[in-house]
Amino acid sequence: MAGQGEIVQRKIVMIGCGVVGQGFLEILVQKKELLSKKFGFEPVLVGVSDMMKGSVMVPEGIDIPAFLEHVSAGKKIDEFSAPGAVAGLDSIATIQQADADIMVEVTYTDIKTGEPATSHMREALKKGMSIATTNKGPITLHFKELCGLAEQNKAILKYEGVVMSGTPIFDLLDYCLAVNDVKEIKGILNGTTNFMLEKMEEENMAYDDALALAQKLGFAEADPTADVEGFDALAKVIILSNVVLGGNIGTDDAERIGISGITIEDVQQAKAENMRYKLIGSTKLVDGKIIASVKPVKLPLSDPLAGVGGAVNALTFSTDLSGDITIQGSGAGKIETGFAIMIDVLNIHREL
Amino acid sequence: MAGQGEIVQRKIVMIGCGVVGQGFLEILVQKKELLSKKFGFEPVLVGVSDMMKGSVMVPEGIDIPAFLEHVSAGKKIDEFSAPGAVAGLDSIATIQQADADIMVEVTYTDIKTGEPATSHMREALKKGMSIATTNKGPITLHFKELCGLAEQNKAILKYEGVVMSGTPIFDLLDYCLAVNDVKEIKGILNGTTNFMLEKMEEENMAYDDALALAQKLGFAEADPTADVEGFDALAKVIILSNVVLGGNIGTDDAERIGISGITIEDVQQAKAENMRYKLIGSTKLVDGKIIASVKPVKLPLSDPLAGVGGAVNALTFSTDLSGDITIQGSGAGKIETGFAIMIDVLNIHREL
Repeated sequence: MAGQGEIVQRKIVMIGCGVVGQGFLEILVQKKELLSKKFGFEPVLVGVSDMMKGSVMVPEGIDIPAFLEHVSAGKKIDEFSAPGAVAGLDSIATIQQADADIMVEVTYTDIKTGEPATSHMREALKKGMSIATTNKGPITLHFKELCGLAEQNKAILKYEGVVMSGTPIFDLLDYCLAVNDVKEIKGILNGTTNFMLEKMEEENMAYDDALALAQKLGFAEADPTADVEGFDALAKVIILSNVVLGGNIGTDDAERIGISGITIEDVQQAKAENMRYKLIGSTKLVDGKIIASVKPVKLPLSDPLAGVGGAVNALTFSTDLSGDITIQGSGAGKIETGFAIMIDVLNIHREL
Repeated sequence: MAGQGEIVQRKIVMIGCGVVGQGFLEILVQKKELLSKKFGFEPVLVGVSDMMKGSVMVPEGIDIPAFLEHVSAGKKIDEFSAPGAVAGLDSIATIQQADADIMVEVTYTDIKTGEPATSHMREALKKGMSIATTNKGPITLHFKELCGLAEQNKAILKYEGVVMSGTPIFDLLDYCLAVNDVKEIKGILNGTTNFMLEKMEEENMAYDDALALAQKLGFAEADPTADVEGFDALAKVIILSNVVLGGNIGTDDAERIGISGITIEDVQQAKAENMRYKLIGSTKLVDGKIIASVKPVKLPLSDPLAGVGGAVNALTFSTDLSGDITIQGSGAGKIETGFAIMIDVLNIHREL
């Protein structure tokens, strides 16, 4: 832990340089003075490697505003010039040679293989680097192995953004609700479907129209399967089951029903009963076994999750000491998800 | 910070031994093994002093289960016997002589004078003791002075429970949302009035009947003024203004309107408009000046606070990076408030 008033430099290598990575770098620029004055933290970005955009390593530290301008202009990262810059290394070589304290892993998520992110993480942890990531793949598939590697190498593994993006849940449990036994977790883990169900109820919109509107507004992909069939929410439920409840389950071990079977009649019938359909992800430990699911549930309006409207996420943790604690916030966005990396990096700084 | 695997003893002196203090001690007993194994924390209760029940100081540590049994049986604390026990010291003498690392301050709240809690805190801080408290008085009236004293004496001042009891907000901001600039805070800070407004809307209950029911269920006091006229919520708004937004205001600097002027017709009219009355506490910084208030507000049902039902509390923090983050949970209760002390003590242990 850094002493009061002291400023500590932490070397950061960033693997992946898409929306989230750039959001993180923008926050580093915007909050430079605060990070230094309030937290004694001076980030030094020593390398960036992106599979599509190229890579650069600068042992003395990259000028972050200049780098962001370079990338925003659509230029290759290899072409970023700085004294002592080494270009063209692949991601693994960048991790091996960067001599960083922290790796920021923000490559694309592959939920089936967890690659290439898992290989990046193994490599970083073996070198004793701590990790901040928003990548669901490795945390869904290889959580226990990665924790073991982190412990062996006295490194810290942080992944606040993998479930609710910039809305804190793992830090909430670790720092604010520690000592509690979490008995059950349930919530709204997909903003797109929450938006669609709300439109069907409030504006009497048919399913297909609600989906078309979500696509038009950029919430839903052209292929909406991951959202509407519950696969996105399911990955988050698996993570919560394994990370928070200590389970060891895969995507085949949980029930999954999407909202594509929900009709406008179902939604309106629920409304007439003072109830509301929500796509609920939930998990609990019963007699040592995880019971997890994603499915549409008709909630009474008095349920805290019933009032969660719009393209947001919310989770209720049922605990033994603090009762039910519900947190709600954005589940996506460039700056919000960039913040998830920022808080992980800052907490690594505070704990190192 | 304690090293991994190491178990650190922390001496605790507790001033006040009512519901909250006993709730905290029950948690220490229930979670003894977890505190030791997971957090390397071994609490040693070296003294307890209560204005009504008496006091005892045991330098080698009080047997907590035996002490709880003694107090539950209605016996005087002075009569608790243990090797080396010193009885009969007043609270200030207990603080002075206890040689503790942490003072738990859980005496009754006097929102007008802040006493005797503020004197206890000054004394503890001067001796370099860190503090965990749920006492609104000193935090409402003397926050800046106490922070200054804590800094001078390298002590930690924690007060998680003063606004939402066991539902984390200050730790949420410090550990999970650090780096964010909080622009506005608004929420439901009084469970009793929230319960009453819900009954008026859902069960078409008149104001007086809703109040009588709240009193019958133990939510509202015989004299309900503090709840229904907004004084309780106001104290919390003052704390949020001064602690989170850096203001320096008193209770006269904020508008306060209770719910006693709200009729069943108002509530039903709002319902017909798809709106809902909530007693909202809010504060924001505008051109360097705090604008704070407690008043009934008609919210659209899409507002996250509109869906908050029952005798619970909820707050929405509007931030520059994470957007709007809403947290909801219990705002009272023996174990919940005892937990607020527990998490403060644990975080002091982790930071010392």
